[in-house]
Amino acid sequence: MKIVIIGAGNVASHIAQALSDSHEIAQVYSRSLEHAIAVAEPLGAAAINDLEQVAADADVYLLSITDDALPSIIDRLAHVNDHAVWAHTAGSRPMELFAGKMARYGVFYPLQTFTKGVPVEMSKVPFFIEAVDDATLAELDTLAQSISSRVYHADSAMRKRMHVASVFACNFTNYLWSVADRLLSDHDIPFDVLAPLLEVTLNKALTIGPKAAQTGPARRGDRGVIEAHLAMLHDGDRDIYRLLSEEILKAYEQH
Amino acid sequence: MKIVIIGAGNVASHIAQALSDSHEIAQVYSRSLEHAIAVAEPLGAAAINDLEQVAADADVYLLSITDDALPSIIDRLAHVNDHAVWAHTAGSRPMELFAGKMARYGVFYPLQTFTKGVPVEMSKVPFFIEAVDDATLAELDTLAQSISSRVYHADSAMRKRMHVASVFACNFTNYLWSVADRLLSDHDIPFDVLAPLLEVTLNKALTIGPKAAQTGPARRGDRGVIEAHLAMLHDGDRDIYRLLSEEILKAYEQH
Repeated sequence: MKIVIIGAGNVASHIAQALSDSHEIAQVYSRSLEHAIAVAEPLGAAAINDLEQVAADADVYLLSITDDALPSIIDRLAHVNDHAVWAHTAGSRPMELFAGKMARYGVFYPLQTFTKGVPVEMSKVPFFIEAVDDATLAELDTLAQSISSRVYHADSAMRKRMHVASVFACNFTNYLWSVADRLLSDHDIPFDVLAPLLEVTLNKALTIGPKAAQTGPARRGDRGVIEAHLAMLHDGDRDIYRLLSEEILKAYEQH
Repeated sequence: MKIVIIGAGNVASHIAQALSDSHEIAQVYSRSLEHAIAVAEPLGAAAINDLEQVAADADVYLLSITDDALPSIIDRLAHVNDHAVWAHTAGSRPMELFAGKMARYGVFYPLQTFTKGVPVEMSKVPFFIEAVDDATLAELDTLAQSISSRVYHADSAMRKRMHVASVFACNFTNYLWSVADRLLSDHDIPFDVLAPLLEVTLNKALTIGPKAAQTGPARRGDRGVIEAHLAMLHDGDRDIYRLLSEEILKAYEQH
């Protein structure tokens, strides 16, 4: 397939690279020509920074830009090609953003954090796709399966739910790690002393499920330790410790 | 060194096994003879279930039992051997539990979660040790270094701080994973679709530090997404989402 990538950020560049193994990346658009070139050049694609230059003959147009920029860019590209498949990669935005502007559209959402320069094993990244009709869905399916072995169908409601779940699972856990980091650095202990513990904790949760894997003072109902820990904490750290302990106590209460 | 292990739980069995490579495990004690045998037999040690039988001629006595059981067991073993080194593996208990009962004592605390039957790469497990005098500390140092390459000295205050940090980093993160698991299972999505995301998230936090690794709606100050997510959540999940988002917003506020 001949593909145009709108966007040159982390998601765009990782997906463009993965797709280039079995597809032709025709163009990469970014407002910054420099950014467009950085993604386009290694893939033998044309770098553009003017939406007027977007080719009208591609099979697929993938929009991987900030959520806020989506509506205006879709407006600008309306009816450029009504035979092609148009999709955005924004998990938190509905496919209906394209309605009335493009004929065949959908969502092509990778559930992964991409960091510039950090390679990702794309074949293991779950892709959640949705489309306005079956033929479009089939094309997005094929596209997703050409780079990943884990392709799911998910509508907006399901994607929203997954996004919330991943905020808990990734963003909030990362914040808890930074609380731990701060508590340790007060004593000149490096965060990575926790590495073996964190790896075992994650593997255990993935193996037996987090519900069964729960450990700690709250899981044991050890209110003595909980109170002693609260006495050592301040402000937000203390609020977090109290709330999460209460939730764990409730979740594992003996009835 | 000739070592007696008091306890036959997860910590005791993993440590006994690691120590047996370069030391003689003389005895393993448990109230349950069956449990003592399970740990002792593969190591060629004697299994005992009577504290009266504890050998008086060992070099090191390691107590790896529940926190609550420590004081009474220490009482029962008082002055069994005042030349040997006595240590417990309980991160949240002071070494002073031994004071007046043993002459040479300390703490031998592995910062790791041990699960029965799940092998642990002990050489990477950080050990935090402390002792009542330098000679005892040196012996515990040698003992710890014989099984791990990461040996630190830490007094009670520092261990307590590490314990709190690990509750945040492991127990609470695991609870957030079980919230995610619950949110996903409502939509018949398996928790392990998050696996690639979780692995990248953890690696990033360990590589660049969690403070720099933070992402998500609260990190971006995206209050629209935060409100939309709150509207989808209930009860404790909602409280957790609100509190953690507020804390992240505060932590990354532009001044």
